[in-house]
Amino acid sequence: MTGPTAPSHAMDQAVALEQVAENLVRGRTVDAWANMVGPFGGTTAATMLQAVIQHPERHGDPLALTLNYAGPVAEGEFEIEVRPARTNRSNQHWWLEMRQGDQVVTTATAITALRRETWSETEAGPPDVPAPEDLTPAGSDRGVRWVENYDMRFVTGGWEWVADGEGSPESTTTMWIRDTPARPLDHVALTAMCDSFFPRSFLRLGRPVPAGTVTLSIHYLATADEIAAQGTDFILGSVHAHRFHGNYHDESARLWGRDGTLLATSNQLMYFKS
Amino acid sequence: MTGPTAPSHAMDQAVALEQVAENLVRGRTVDAWANMVGPFGGTTAATMLQAVIQHPERHGDPLALTLNYAGPVAEGEFEIEVRPARTNRSNQHWWLEMRQGDQVVTTATAITALRRETWSETEAGPPDVPAPEDLTPAGSDRGVRWVENYDMRFVTGGWEWVADGEGSPESTTTMWIRDTPARPLDHVALTAMCDSFFPRSFLRLGRPVPAGTVTLSIHYLATADEIAAQGTDFILGSVHAHRFHGNYHDESARLWGRDGTLLATSNQLMYFKS
Repeated sequence: MTGPTAPSHAMDQAVALEQVAENLVRGRTVDAWANMVGPFGGTTAATMLQAVIQHPERHGDPLALTLNYAGPVAEGEFEIEVRPARTNRSNQHWWLEMRQGDQVVTTATAITALRRETWSETEAGPPDVPAPEDLTPAGSDRGVRWVENYDMRFVTGGWEWVADGEGSPESTTTMWIRDTPARPLDHVALTAMCDSFFPRSFLRLGRPVPAGTVTLSIHYLATADEIAAQGTDFILGSVHAHRFHGNYHDESARLWGRDGTLLATSNQLMYFKS
Repeated sequence: MTGPTAPSHAMDQAVALEQVAENLVRGRTVDAWANMVGPFGGTTAATMLQAVIQHPERHGDPLALTLNYAGPVAEGEFEIEVRPARTNRSNQHWWLEMRQGDQVVTTATAITALRRETWSETEAGPPDVPAPEDLTPAGSDRGVRWVENYDMRFVTGGWEWVADGEGSPESTTTMWIRDTPARPLDHVALTAMCDSFFPRSFLRLGRPVPAGTVTLSIHYLATADEIAAQGTDFILGSVHAHRFHGNYHDESARLWGRDGTLLATSNQLMYFKS
């Protein structure tokens, strides 16, 4: 989408979709989000979620999203088929498929839901960390362009463990992150942030290795008003791997608002070579 | 499936599927797995995985499975559409949909993969717990029939916290589990065990409440030989919730072999009322 109506923020550009038929939308990759191969996977996830959010029959807010990265997304246009598989009174189940030409590049399922008040409790509070203002913004010299769209501030497990070739004895990275330029948090931006951690294999091995996400599941544990209440502030993310084995490893992340609200969890599997 | 060729073990009965067309199989619910409403969700997950495993074009072992419980599964027959969405050299992406009549009851995606040797490490080892032989088998008086198919031995967070109405101050349950009668572990049995923990809302609130899984993602972190090596021995599972809010809560589980091998992680979202 270009011209006077094009959105100005890179995130909004990434998720801009035009309706081309019933249950079918079209978008295109945005250079500002380029990764090693194709676009940053977080924007692919955010774009698939946006296809659900703007669907005329959508009912409720995002509750869960599972993305399967079936193949590389090439630079240029893509189409997303998005259709409700079942609509219940309080939730709705979605099927999605992103295609380029005759290739399926991404499959996904999503659930949207109406939330009601119940007993509420958070067991997994944020770790005790310095404020983002007391930390140095991470450099963007990581060989991928998409990181320039974020202000990341590493608390532990930062890129220096990869850059200095030593590797870390454990796989946890904790960091503050926000969009740059600033953009109020919503489900779309939060979705991309859920995939913004560099691969745990890099951290353990002390070097970038061929690696890529094959599947990613996000559970939105906060309501839309809690997400909106974060405004343009930093979000705290912490991620670790449980196991590296047989050229795959997992990654398990939690993301909190600065106010301690647990916004989402994200679990993924990555292939890697070593 | 009945008659002389019917499988004798309840798990094999649950996942028995006959081919009815290309990419279409038929099965039926098994009374021995009855839950409060419909069959135990673990058998639904195992049955969907079995549809992939027995597909003639299947390539590699199960790597990931996401199940979305779109509506109740009624007693009786169901059909599963199962088709490869994309086949790559080292992995394969699957679409699945379980239907009864004109209703979609479950959707799923799965990934199968060929595993190669790489650097290997487990960060998340099992907790220090007593051997199953030193623990009492849990009673099966929980009002649902499916629990009779398991020998569960609670280490922490057992059913007594629900039964006595007190509730637990935190949501962790750790337990040993194996099929009864004994059955060698495979991906199908492991999948069902990933959903065998009672809802965390029951544990925190100290009473059964209306609750049900809406989405479940399993990551198989072990290779097929490691899973087979467990034989008929107990598996150790530990589960907890990160947050209860707005009538949904998550559940995050890890399952290890007695030898300490991390076999799988399982993450789900449940609706609940309170």
